[in-house]
This record gives sequence, C-alpha cells and structure tokens, in this order.
Amino acid sequence: MTTGHRRADTGQPPKVRDVPIGIDATGTRRETDSMGAIEVPADRYWGAQTQRSLIHFSIGDDRMPKAVYHAYGYVKKAAALVNGREGRLPQWKADLIARVADEVISGALDDHFPLYVWQTGSGTQSNMNVNEVISNRAVQLVGGALGSKTPIHPNDHVNMGQSSNDTFPTAMHIAAVRQLHEHLLPQVRELQRAVEAKSHAWWDIVKIGRTHLEDAVPLSVGQEWSGYAAQLTDAIARIEATLPGLHQLAVGGTAVGTGLNTPESFGAQVAREIATLTGHPFRRAANSFAAQGGLDAMVAASAGLRALAVPLMKIANDIRWLASGPRCGIGELALPANEPGSSIMPGKVNPTQCEAMVMVCIQALAEDSAIAFAGSQGNFELNAMRPVIINDFLHSARILGDASEKLRTYCVEGAELHRDQINEYLSRSLMLVTALSPEIGYDKASRIAHKADDEGTTLREAALASGYISPEDFDRIVDPQHMAHLSH
Amino acid sequence: MTTGHRRADTGQPPKVRDVPIGIDATGTRRETDSMGAIEVPADRYWGAQTQRSLIHFSIGDDRMPKAVYHAYGYVKKAAALVNGREGRLPQWKADLIARVADEVISGALDDHFPLYVWQTGSGTQSNMNVNEVISNRAVQLVGGALGSKTPIHPNDHVNMGQSSNDTFPTAMHIAAVRQLHEHLLPQVRELQRAVEAKSHAWWDIVKIGRTHLEDAVPLSVGQEWSGYAAQLTDAIARIEATLPGLHQLAVGGTAVGTGLNTPESFGAQVAREIATLTGHPFRRAANSFAAQGGLDAMVAASAGLRALAVPLMKIANDIRWLASGPRCGIGELALPANEPGSSIMPGKVNPTQCEAMVMVCIQALAEDSAIAFAGSQGNFELNAMRPVIINDFLHSARILGDASEKLRTYCVEGAELHRDQINEYLSRSLMLVTALSPEIGYDKASRIAHKADDEGTTLREAALASGYISPEDFDRIVDPQHMAHLSH
Amino acid sequence: MTTGHRRADTGQPPKVRDVPIGIDATGTRRETDSMGAIEVPADRYWGAQTQRSLIHFSIGDDRMPKAVYHAYGYVKKAAALVNGREGRLPQWKADLIARVADEVISGALDDHFPLYVWQTGSGTQSNMNVNEVISNRAVQLVGGALGSKTPIHPNDHVNMGQSSNDTFPTAMHIAAVRQLHEHLLPQVRELQRAVEAKSHAWWDIVKIGRTHLEDAVPLSVGQEWSGYAAQLTDAIARIEATLPGLHQLAVGGTAVGTGLNTPESFGAQVAREIATLTGHPFRRAANSFAAQGGLDAMVAASAGLRALAVPLMKIANDIRWLASGPRCGIGELALPANEPGSSIMPGKVNPTQCEAMVMVCIQALAEDSAIAFAGSQGNFELNAMRPVIINDFLHSARILGDASEKLRTYCVEGAELHRDQINEYLSRSLMLVTALSPEIGYDKASRIAHKADDEGTTLREAALASGYISPEDFDRIVDPQHMAHLSH
Amino acid sequence: MTTGHRRADTGQPPKVRDVPIGIDATGTRRETDSMGAIEVPADRYWGAQTQRSLIHFSIGDDRMPKAVYHAYGYVKKAAALVNGREGRLPQWKADLIARVADEVISGALDDHFPLYVWQTGSGTQSNMNVNEVISNRAVQLVGGALGSKTPIHPNDHVNMGQSSNDTFPTAMHIAAVRQLHEHLLPQVRELQRAVEAKSHAWWDIVKIGRTHLEDAVPLSVGQEWSGYAAQLTDAIARIEATLPGLHQLAVGGTAVGTGLNTPESFGAQVAREIATLTGHPFRRAANSFAAQGGLDAMVAASAGLRALAVPLMKIANDIRWLASGPRCGIGELALPANEPGSSIMPGKVNPTQCEAMVMVCIQALAEDSAIAFAGSQGNFELNAMRPVIINDFLHSARILGDASEKLRTYCVEGAELHRDQINEYLSRSLMLVTALSPEIGYDKASRIAHKADDEGTTLREAALASGYISPEDFDRIVDPQHMAHLSH
Repeated sequence: MTTGHRRADTGQPPKVRDVPIGIDATGTRRETDSMGAIEVPADRYWGAQTQRSLIHFSIGDDRMPKAVYHAYGYVKKAAALVNGREGRLPQWKADLIARVADEVISGALDDHFPLYVWQTGSGTQSNMNVNEVISNRAVQLVGGALGSKTPIHPNDHVNMGQSSNDTFPTAMHIAAVRQLHEHLLPQVRELQRAVEAKSHAWWDIVKIGRTHLEDAVPLSVGQEWSGYAAQLTDAIARIEATLPGLHQLAVGGTAVGTGLNTPESFGAQVAREIATLTGHPFRRAANSFAAQGGLDAMVAASAGLRALAVPLMKIANDIRWLASGPRCGIGELALPANEPGSSIMPGKVNPTQCEAMVMVCIQALAEDSAIAFAGSQGNFELNAMRPVIINDFLHSARILGDASEKLRTYCVEGAELHRDQINEYLSRSLMLVTALSPEIGYDKASRIAHKADDEGTTLREAALASGYISPEDFDRIVDPQHMAHLSH
Repeated sequence: MTTGHRRADTGQPPKVRDVPIGIDATGTRRETDSMGAIEVPADRYWGAQTQRSLIHFSIGDDRMPKAVYHAYGYVKKAAALVNGREGRLPQWKADLIARVADEVISGALDDHFPLYVWQTGSGTQSNMNVNEVISNRAVQLVGGALGSKTPIHPNDHVNMGQSSNDTFPTAMHIAAVRQLHEHLLPQVRELQRAVEAKSHAWWDIVKIGRTHLEDAVPLSVGQEWSGYAAQLTDAIARIEATLPGLHQLAVGGTAVGTGLNTPESFGAQVAREIATLTGHPFRRAANSFAAQGGLDAMVAASAGLRALAVPLMKIANDIRWLASGPRCGIGELALPANEPGSSIMPGKVNPTQCEAMVMVCIQALAEDSAIAFAGSQGNFELNAMRPVIINDFLHSARILGDASEKLRTYCVEGAELHRDQINEYLSRSLMLVTALSPEIGYDKASRIAHKADDEGTTLREAALASGYISPEDFDRIVDPQHMAHLSH
Repeated sequence: MTTGHRRADTGQPPKVRDVPIGIDATGTRRETDSMGAIEVPADRYWGAQTQRSLIHFSIGDDRMPKAVYHAYGYVKKAAALVNGREGRLPQWKADLIARVADEVISGALDDHFPLYVWQTGSGTQSNMNVNEVISNRAVQLVGGALGSKTPIHPNDHVNMGQSSNDTFPTAMHIAAVRQLHEHLLPQVRELQRAVEAKSHAWWDIVKIGRTHLEDAVPLSVGQEWSGYAAQLTDAIARIEATLPGLHQLAVGGTAVGTGLNTPESFGAQVAREIATLTGHPFRRAANSFAAQGGLDAMVAASAGLRALAVPLMKIANDIRWLASGPRCGIGELALPANEPGSSIMPGKVNPTQCEAMVMVCIQALAEDSAIAFAGSQGNFELNAMRPVIINDFLHSARILGDASEKLRTYCVEGAELHRDQINEYLSRSLMLVTALSPEIGYDKASRIAHKADDEGTTLREAALASGYISPEDFDRIVDPQHMAHLSH
Repeated sequence: MTTGHRRADTGQPPKVRDVPIGIDATGTRRETDSMGAIEVPADRYWGAQTQRSLIHFSIGDDRMPKAVYHAYGYVKKAAALVNGREGRLPQWKADLIARVADEVISGALDDHFPLYVWQTGSGTQSNMNVNEVISNRAVQLVGGALGSKTPIHPNDHVNMGQSSNDTFPTAMHIAAVRQLHEHLLPQVRELQRAVEAKSHAWWDIVKIGRTHLEDAVPLSVGQEWSGYAAQLTDAIARIEATLPGLHQLAVGGTAVGTGLNTPESFGAQVAREIATLTGHPFRRAANSFAAQGGLDAMVAASAGLRALAVPLMKIANDIRWLASGPRCGIGELALPANEPGSSIMPGKVNPTQCEAMVMVCIQALAEDSAIAFAGSQGNFELNAMRPVIINDFLHSARILGDASEKLRTYCVEGAELHRDQINEYLSRSLMLVTALSPEIGYDKASRIAHKADDEGTTLREAALASGYISPEDFDRIVDPQHMAHLSH
C-alpha cells in the first residue's frame, strides 16, 4: 500500500473543533460528484448525489424514515472504528467519522436527510446522503472547505470497505430491530398485560358464549379475555422469533456479496462492533449472496407484524361487538366515552379506538403483502426493492405499536361490564341444553332445545315438559357456573 | 406459392366418416414432435407435446379449466373457416377442422384435455393439446393413421395463421365472457331480484339503524335492503362494464403481435367469425402488442369480480349479524334452518350460507390479487402468467355465482323478520333524540340522551324531565315512522 | 317552526370584518362540547372535539390528507348556500359560512386540520374539525368570542342538514375526483404522449422480439412502444370510467341514509351546488343506504388506479431490462444517466427511475388491496373504514402521478437506442426461421433451427445446408423488415 | 352416571365381522338427524347431515381436502381410545370406532367424504360427515341397520367429548403438519440439495455480477447459487419453525373452549394419543379460547409457506433470465429442452419450469393473503373461516412441493453453463474498475470507467490511457478470479 491515493492518509491530523451543528450560510453551494457539479442549499451538509436524488425523485411526501439514517449511523461508526483499528484509516479519521456518526445516531442531523422513499432500489442515494453529510460535517469540524471531501471523503473514507448493497440492508435490519425492541414490543406487552388484567378481574363472571355469532354454551368473561391475552402472548413470541433473522447483517459483502475491496474479516468485525454499540446480538450473515440478493429476513419479520395484526383485528372487533348498543346491540361491555360520536346524533358514543385499530390492522396487512411482493422481485445479486420494504415495515410497526398503546389507554383499561345484560343473556340461552347431552343423548337434548325455541319458553320449562329429565337433575346439571369449567 | 409444402394441400379430399368419439385401443401409441417420439395412451387423441407437458407439469390437481378448451374450439373453428374462405386451406380441410372444433366446443372431447394449470406461461401446451386432438380426431374421421398428422397437421393446419401468443389470450377472453354471461351475471341478477323483493316486502317495517355498531336513528328494513339491492345492481353494472375490454381479441397478432405468417385482415376476420359463432360482439384488439404483452383487460375483468365480492361480503355479514342470537344477539332476522349447526350443541342453527359466502368472497379477493400480481409480471412481447390468470378468474366467477345462487335459495328467499324484536329495539333507542336537534339544538338534545343513558330511563322520560320540550312536541317530532322518511 | 332554538336565527346580522387568518394568542383556550370543556392551543381555530381526537388518536405520523378538508370546504359551502336559499339559515349566516369555506377550499386554513388518519371510522372527527374551524373563524370574522359557537354553531349551522355519515363519503368522492382530474390523469396522459412519441420516432427500427424472455420473431421498437402507449391509453380510460361512480354523492342521507333532519330535496340541491362550484358533474347518489353502508365507488376507483399500476410495472420492467448492461445485459436501450449509481462501483449507472416506479406500483397494488379489504368491512348503515380508504386512495394516486412525471422527464424522454446492439441481435436470432413455416412446414423449419443451434451456425447457413429452401427463397422470405409487418 | 342414556352402553358387545368396505345397494336410503329424515345414496355411508350439506353447498368444484378427513381419523381414533380407557365408552365400542377410524386414516373411505370447501365456517359438516361415516361403517361391521345409529351413534359415541369447534382445528393442524413433513419439506430439501450441488460444481467459474440488472463486479457461478441454496435453507428453517405452533391442538375445548361435557384431562390425553399415532409431538393448546377463537398458528404456518414462495420466485426468475436467449439474451445458462416451446416458432425452447414455478408462487402468495384475511375474521369463541384456511394452506403446500420437485428434476439438475458467454461478459465489463478504488480513489476510478464507456474501449485501455495506474498494477489488481474472493 504505497501508491499515491493511500499515502494522503498519512498526514498530520488536523485539530477537531467543537462547532455546533449547523451551517451559517444562505443561498447555494457548489458540490461535485462523478457526474459533475451541482448547486445545493448552502445551509445543508449534503452533497451532489443527495441533491440529484432530491430533484429526480420528488415523488409524494414519503421520506426515507429517519430510523434508517440513525441505523446507518451505527454502520458508519462501526466501520470507521474497525478500519481505524486495522490501520486502513488513520485513527484520527476513524475517530472523526465516529464522532459525526454519533450525531447521526442521535437524530441531531435529521434535517440533513431529506430523501424520498421512492428512489434507487438499492438505497444507494440514502447511503450517499449519509456519506456526504458525515463528510461535510467532519470537514466543518476540522475547519475545511465544505464540498472539498478533504480530509474525509464520502466514498473513500466514510464508505470505506462498504457498498450500499451490503450496508443498506444492514441498516434496514438495525432499524427494524430497534423499532421492534424500543417501540412495538413494549407497547404490545403492555397491551397484553392490560388484557390479562381484565381476564383476571373478570374471571368469575360467567356469560353466554357465542359461536357463528349464535348463542352457545357459557364461559366466563375472564376466560374469553384469557384467549385474547394468549393470542397477544403468541404474537409477541412470533415477533421475537423473527429477531435472529434480523440479527444477521449483510455488511462485509460489499458490491455483490464477495466482499471485494474489504478484508475477509471486515463484515464480522463490523457486525460485532454494531452489536456492542446497540446492545443487540448482531452478527454477519451466513451467506452474503442470499443477504443481498434477497431480503427474506425482512419478509419474515413482516410476517411477525402480521401475526400481531391478525389477532389484534379479531380482538378489536370482538370488543366493539361486545360493546355494541347501548340498547339495541349486544351490550355486554361498556367502553370509555372519549369523545362525542356523531355530528348529528346527540349523545352517541362509538367504539372509535377499535375502529382505528381495525383500520391500522388492514393497513398493516396490506403493507405486509407489499413487503412480500417486493421481496420476491430481486434479480441476481440485488433485491432492488429495499426502500419500499423498510418504509412499509417501519410504518406498520409504528402504527401497530401506537394503536396498541391507544387501545390500551383509551379503551381496554377503562372498559367495564354491563353485568345485568350478561346475566340476562345467560338466563335466556337455550344452548345450556348441551349439558344434558351426556345424560339423555344428543337427539333428545336437541328436541328439547327446538321445543323451547318453537314455543318461546325457557329451556327448563321445555326440558321438564319433555319428560326426559327430572327437575332435580336439570337444576344439578344445567348450571352455567359449573358449565364454564372455571377451575380449568 | 408453389413449393412442396403447400402443394400437398391440393389433393383430392378424403371421405369423412361418421365415427363416434373414442379410440378403441389399449396400451400406448407413438406420437412425435420436433423433439422426437414419445408414447401416449392409445385411447387418447392427444399427441407428443401434450404428453410431454403431462409428464413435466404434474403439479397439484389443478387442471386448465375446460371452459378454456371450449373457447379454443371457437378459435380453431373460426380460423379454419377464414383460412378456408380465403383459399389458404382447402375447403374440406377447413370444414373438417370446423367439425371437430364443434365437438371441442360441445365438451364431448373434454377427456382429451388433461393438462395442468401450472405449465408454460403462454398456454402453448394447451393450444398444442387442442391442435393435436383436433388433428388426430380429424385423421380418425377420414380413416387416417393416428399420429400421422395427415391430412390435418396440428401446426400447419389447425394452428394455421395462429400462435399461442395471440390465440391463448383470445380463448381466455372468450371463456371469461361466456362465464360471465352464462353463469355469474344470471346468478347475481337473480340474487339482486330476491334482495329487492325483500326490500319491497319489508318497506314499511321501521327498525333502529346502526352505525359504528351502535344504535342510531330509524330506517325501515326495506330501506336497509334497498341498499343491498343497489349495491348488487352497481356490482352487476361494474362487471358488465368490463365486457368491452374482454371483447377485444388478440387473435391476428401471432407470435409477437406483428401478425407474422398471417394476412393483415386475418385477425379481424377471425374475431368477426367468433362473434357470429358465440353471439358476443368480439373484435380484434386495437393494439396487438398491448394485447399480448399485457393482460390488462383480464385484470380489469377481475376487478369487476371484486366489485361484486366486496358488497357480497358486507351483505352476508349484515345478514348473519342481524340474525345473530336467537336470544343473545341482535335477532332481528330469522334465517331458514337448513341443517343442524353443531355436533355438540343440540338445536343450534347457524348462518352457514353467509359464512360460505364470506369465505368465497375472501377467496375471490385473494384470487383477484393474484391476477393483478400476475398481470404486472409480463416481459417484452408476452405476459407469461396466463394460466394462473384465467384459472383464478374462472374459478372466482364460478364460486361467486354458485354462492350467490345458494345464498339466495337457502338464505335470502326464506328469511323472515322477528318483528317483536325489531319493535322492542325501536322503542328502546335513545338516538331518536336526533329528531329534536333542529328544534332545540344539538347541545340540549345531547344532554337529554346522556341523561336517559345515565339514569336508565326512556328517552321520553328524560326529554320531558329536561324541560326542553313539551310532551306534545315530543310525541309529534319523535315519531320513528316519520323519521324514516319512507316516502323518499 | 317557531320554537326557541330556531328563533335565535332571526337576529340582526353582525358586521363581518376583514380579519386575516390567524389568532394572535398564546397558551390555551377553553373549548366545550357535549362531554365538557377542554383546553386547546389558543392560536388554533379548532374546538373541543378536534382536541379530543388529537389526544386519543396520535397514531403514527399519518394525517388525514388536506385534500379531504379542501373537498369538505365545498360541502360546507354548498350546504350553507342551499340552507340560506331555502330559508333554513339566515342569509348572512349562509354567506359567512360560505366565505370561510372558501378559505378552507383554498388551503389557507390547512394548519388548523391536524387530525390523524387513524381515528373514528366514520370520519366524524375530521368533519367536526371542519365544523369547529369554520365556526371559530366565522366567530372571529364577526368579532365574537372564540369557543362561543355564536353566532355560528359547528353542529347547528355549519353541519346543518348533514351528518358525517353522508358528508364524509361526499368529501371523499370530491377529493378523489379532483385528485384524478388535477394530478393523476394529466401526468399519465403526458407520459402516454411521451411513450407514443418514442413509438413514432422508432417506428421503423426493427429489432428482435422476445417471448418467454427467449428470442422470437422481429418487430419494430416503435411497435413495441406502441404497446406501452396503448396500455397507458387503456389505463387512462379505465380510470376515467370510474368517475361516474365517484360523481354520485351520499350527501342528503344524513345519519343512516333516510335524510332525517333535512328536506328531501336537500341532497340533490347540495350535489348540484357542488357540481357548479367544482365544475364536475356531481349528483346525489341513487341509493343513500348503499352510499353510506358501502364505499363501492371508491373500491372501483381504486381498481382504476390498479389498472394503471399493472401496466406501469410492466413498462418500467421492460425499460430496465432493455437497458440492462451496458455490456453484459440486453443493452438495446440507453437511459439518461441522472446520478452515480453506486457508492463502491465507479461509473455505474442504474435504471433508478424504473426501480422507483416498480416500487410505487407495488405500493399502489398493496394500498388497493387495503381499500378492497376495508370496503368489505362495513356493517349495517355505515362502512366505518373510511379514513384508511381515502388516505390510501389519495396516496396511491399521488405517487403514481408523481412517479409518472418523473419517469417521463428523467427516463423516457431522454431514452435512446443502441442501434448496433439491436442490429446485432437481429442478425443472430434463429427465430427468423418462423417465416419459412408457411413455405416448408413447421417440422422442417424446426429442424433447421435446431441444426443452427446445435452447430452454432447462422440460420441461413443451416437453412441452405438443409436443402429445404433455395438461397433466393431464403433471402426473399427471411427479411426482418418485412417480417415486422410495419404497414400494419 | 346411572341414568338411562348411558346405561345403553352396558350391553353385550356384538360380533364384529370382516365386511369389506362398500355397500351393495342402489337407490337411496333414509337417514335422519335432528331436523328430520332425508334420502341419501344407498351405497354411501354418510348420513343426513352430510346429505344436507351436499345439497346446500354445491359451490364450485372445491372439495374439502381428503387430508383433512385422514387427520380427522386420528382424532376420532384417539378420542375413542381415551374414552374407552377411561370407561366412558365400552371398550368394544372404542375398539370398533378405532378400527373404522383406521380405515378413514388409510384413505379407504375417501369416496364417502364428498363435501365442499364452502360450507359452514366451523367445519361441522365435515366433522359430522366423519361421525356419520364411522357410525354407519361400524354399524355395518356389527351387522346393524344403516342409519340406525346403533350401536355407534355419530354424536354420542364417535363425537364423544368433542365438538367441531375444537376437533376441526385439531384436524387442520394434523393435516398441515403431515403435509409439511411428508410432502413439502422433503421436496424443498431435495431442491435445496440440487441447488447446492450446482453451487459446488460451479464454484470456480467466475462470472460477471449484476446489480440493478446492470453489470457489476465478478463473483463465481457457485457463489451465486450458494445464495439460492442459503435462501432455501432459511426457508426450510422458517417452515420448520412454524411446526411447534401447529403441534398445539385445540382438542379438549369442545364447544367454546371450556371443555364442557368432557373431563379436564381429556384434551391432553387425546393430544398425547394423536402424538403416539402420528409420531409428531402434538399436545393440547395452552389456551383453548385462543385456539378456537383464532387460527393464529395456521396463519403463522402460512407465513412459513410464503417464506418459501418469496425466494423460490426470485430463484426461478434468476434462472430464466440467466438462460434467456439463446442468442439475444443473457445466455449464461442452458436449461434442458423438455418440450417444443412454440406452436408457431419452430425450434423455440422456453424456461417453462421457471414460469410454472413463478405462477405457483404468485398463487401461494395470494392464498397466504386469503389465510391472513380469514384469520382476522373470527368472532367471539369461533373463527368461522376454517375451511378456506385449511384448503388454501394444503393447496399451497401441495403445489409448492410439486413445483419444487418439477423444477429440480426438469430444470435445475440438467442445467448447464455456456462458459464462452460467461467469459465473454467477464472480459467486457467495465465494473472491474472497482478493484482500483482502494488504490487510486473512487473519483479517478470513476473517470476511467466513464472514459471506457464513452470511447467504447476496454477498461484496461482506458485505465492505462488515464495515467492513473501502471500496466503491471492494473494486471495485478484487476483480476476477476481474485476479485471474486473465492476462498471466502
């Protein structure tokens, strides 16, 4: 390594000054890349490639999520530290890049990452946005000329040993893991606990069960809600089970998975560094070609979100149906009245948290299908559908988490039972006849139920009139509390 | 045109005998194609290419729908008639092909079309299956040797002027149009009429409305069902609106849309012939490259099916909820008890027709999404996803039509009202307060509703207690019959 | 109609002053609704219900699209004008509401519509947001006390004769129609024209066709692009065909479709007024129960977007494959080099506009499936999935329009042909043999093609060696220019 | 337990005769259920409820998969054995039911399970079909009167301690596990091995990589295929990870999850028995209410299928693109020519196995979305969308398995490389310039690549002309074999 390009790295380290973030300039600044020069806003750190992307891809209002850039901050820091440690980058350059990467991670540079979701399918433009911003911010810290790429070059230094092709999916995985750990899972766990608390509180309240929307045999409200709690527990486990896939990072594969222009150990070292920095057990992907040509771990993680959305939709629907009425619906449940429900019907209260949740679930299911579709559209050494995948994933995880928090706070926790209504139904149902089957057989029990239905009598009246069962046996056997098997 | 190949067509026509369909042989017969010879079942008309496909594509149990072959019968007949009329095919050959094509159309040769859905994406193997069967059946009719391709060659004569690339989408469109006209639309129209009849029969029965599943202001049962009827009417119109797209046939474009090896007028003539034979206004597609590179008219037709599935799902859900109970649900509607509902709960009756319909709608929505996905995956001069598209389309149309017929026959037509329950709800609802708003304002009306809810009184009691309204005005204004605006 | 509430409307009109938009206050202001009082930001026009929604539904960053509020401005203005004209509202109140509604339409009040997409399923909160903002802005204009609802009450006056249940879907339709007319359709028409211009420019350039990704018979580049142009023309027509459904407005149905609290003619009059104001042929929906219980016209309009996304995806994919290379792919097409393609591979240029378009199409297909799903989930007199439907529709239309503009500007218009490469392929292809079939038959032609393939010779060499055809006939028949049937 | 109904079970056991399967009768036989009598085909074992379902649900041609009945055989056998062991059923009745259940498991009674997929959402009709067939077959074996339900009653004995609500999802899980273990996983493992074998065989063949479809840096064919192999390995692991969820059985919950009419230990005992009979580690579900109100384990298992379909689609697409040509495409790969590809273009060979696989994957993705949708539509104590879920799951697993077998046998195993073409591309690509970046910097390397592109020279020519690098260094650094990092 004695040729000209690398020798430049042996100079004296400049002094790093404590300049606050921000460029005190107006108008534009000339920045260059391999296609030439272009004007960029003078008060922004980004360079030519970011500016080109801004012009060519102003599609909708969807911006690449900031969480991707924060994750990229870890990648750049880790790569710099490894490159410094191994002597490929002078230590002061590594330290300088790491320092600015910390600013990226913290969100302090968010205003300098303006790019759209709908851009190059590899995410290269967002990678270059990070490279350019770190370069110029570092240049600023050492008193250099913005746009000079000296002493920190966006490609040669910030991106050293990296390609967008390996680092963008790396950043996707980091962002996804953090979103799950820091936002979604805590919210779902809290919702699960709130639901479970209701299950415990209402364990002994026996109610009529419903199958096919039709009256069935009794269970307790607590049992019913234990089902919701169990579904959420399972969903949490299914989401957690996707984490090991996300912990595998593509970093180290560079352009096509071979690791060209980087030492063989680089990927593993950077992954280990990221693990240390983030506290999550990241490691290099077992096969780089799979990790860059496909995004299967992201598709699987999205299936984890779906595993949550499916039961959440069922639970939200159950809650709103159980609360339907107040006088002409099922009316077993009373939800908090958070806001007036109608612009025309005075006094109306609606299960709006449930509706919001159902819509969020529909959106999450659709975004999951977009992720699967996009996951199938890779070609050769690259899946070029990355931005839509990470955007939909983070969005879906975000709204599922937020909606879980809202449903818990403004609906589940304050829900109460209309016990009179619950008892009224219980006393009416004909399906208590089921308890008689083991005693008198299905066919006779069936005749009793039909008789009560046809004649509009109570089940007890019809049963005794049938002569199949004595009053004593009926009262002993047809006992809703007992039928609910609460000791189970 | 004096070279050897074409001269063969000038010989004396052989005698066509009246041989019934069927080959009285056992074991196998040797058939050949450009890749060599292969054994086929001796009692089948198909040839080498069909046999190769059978071996290479035995995936699942999904067979190319017979409707596609019947439609292909029209294509082959029309092409033969045009080729005969224009002198490219001796008239007796044209007539012979047309005669066998009639057997294909009638379904009499169905057993000779065994291929799977999952085959070549162009449908070539099914086209060759038709070509081979027509060839061998024609050969049989003139006493020739099966497999000799003489005097009717599968490619040179049956496929004359055609490619799979233009004729398979042509057959798709014909099959789709026939399925819509002969099966789906009649069934949906009958369902619409049955629903509308209920709307008329129940026009004056006022009931409580429900929005957000919550009690709202009154409407009549007939009004509610007029909404269902109108949704079905609109769905029918949306399906019908997709027919003009399907009437455009790719035929004439041959291999890549240019019409190579066929005269310029051929496509239009064949389309006209198909129109005459089928009674539907088919015509040649305006742009062959679009018609072969894409399948946009099929995707649009599938959206027509979706336009039906969406309201059908809503209607089926409404019906099962309105019929929920019998004693612990909404219980306004009584559905026919077609079968016992439970293996354990005697006397249980469930809204099973609605459940079947909901499942059919979910399947139809999924198959519609498969069609859209497949429609997006064309490349250059061919969309090679044709079999999945036509299979899903015909399947979806079939089950939507059948389920409509079943829902009508076994659910809608026999549905009756629980008028006591309907009246009971009407008398209970607090939302009748809405009628007071124009008189006393939204805010005061709201106070009355909340008061009644809090104190568990009737609306009238709360209203009079409020002092905002006189008993006379209350009784005049809060009149459910009037509130339903039945004269609208 | 002489009772107290309505009498208030007969007072002297206050003076309307020319106060600019904005409230010069800090801290909070007390606002009330039927649930009591709540603090709102003092510099905002919104009231209690908006504030409650902001608190209870802060889910993600997705805000109800501003286009919905602009559309709602038309509804409020039209309703006020009709109510004024008919004497239900004093003319000065009608005029005042109309004046503020114009500010809503213009976007000048956008900052006062902060609500989230994920809210009540009826859109009531956004309707109340509009009612509250118009009320307070009107109050400001006449020098009243903010929050006093006097002289313009959000429910009694701004919402007069309306419910969210009929006006929110009305606003959805208006917003959708405007988005299609003002944004999407113009952009797609321009893209279609650009594609058609390429088709004309390249009409005579004969190239090899490809089916199944495999070499096929020739067509011209212009023919190929005429297919794209035709697909776009058809897509435009399919979108336009959904407009009549969107022109039907639910307004006039109020709470459940019966038109309670509004005269029978109101809906039709308001729709006519909206038509006048917007210049689009809006009219009252034929059946209010269908229009409020379902959202079928929106689902159909979404299918129109899908009818665009499907061919756009095919076209974008074709373009990037045709441009693949530059030296190791198909390489027939040269796309503008808008930006460097790789952070690690110097000089790389990628088909990024096509990738962005493919991702946009995948997102649009997913959002379309969300709309269909949501459309199926209505219950009784309300489909409570409205916000997700309008949000996804407007988003999808927006990004499809923007991406069409970008694809045209930065990819299609600057695309050029690599003619040497096109000619090179044409000279190599074996599929030109197809032209010989009518002359020598399919089987012999097949043998020639296989021979050339096996022996690695040109087609001409193999053909002449076969003895099936003379050199003169070969050269006469196998003429790519002729085979493309350019005169078609 | 001494009342009348149960006493009947204490009679002497009848002699069980060795009657072959089949009923030697024609015409119809009268069968009864709680709704009365109905005629059934005399040569069929099924009873009244099956017959009613046949009449009311003849929708399409989709029949409940036989695998569901085979799985149900295990449930009935295990339940009978447990009931016999515990004394609830006389041992001879238990043995008799178990014997017939073995016939069900073996498929010998398949002709007696005719019901449609689109039926009651609980699957009750298929459960009753099993109960009725086992009852009548048992009756036949002891010489009783068909339809007498004596001595084996379909509900009281065959269904003892069970409901459809717990046993149908139990059968779904068993059928799913068996389909995965016996069909899908073996086929995918074989495909994975075949792909991995290619990876090994082609490990040293260096080729040009492609990202964004554009020329990139080299990798070896073996590396590329190692990515495919790794994706399949991961997919297998993802499918396997869904098995523990499927191993949890709802059995024991009976009607609503409480286990009414069955002892508390029953579910666990039956699950253990099923585990013994099938060899799979089944156990009772942790929460019955979740297991019957939802079908989350099935939705998760379907996500496992999707985790396979997504990479299969990518792999199949890669293969067909790599094989595109033969002379005008990428042409690096030669696929087996299994059948003639075109009815009009002689000698054409197409990547038909890949096309079939892509279509299968699209179908699988759609069916997966149907399963998720259906999974979200449960209400209260039952998800009544079971038939569509199990039908789509088994279908998807079936076609994915079959297509994997076909792709392996008829495409992957016989695939060969066009090494000349591979080498030709390698020598042409400009992206080898990437290796120079660490030496001369990204910017200079970029200039060399653009120069070569603009001037149409080789990379080496442009590099040397630039003066940035010596011939010796160029030849040392730009070495494709080295660049591929094959030792990695």
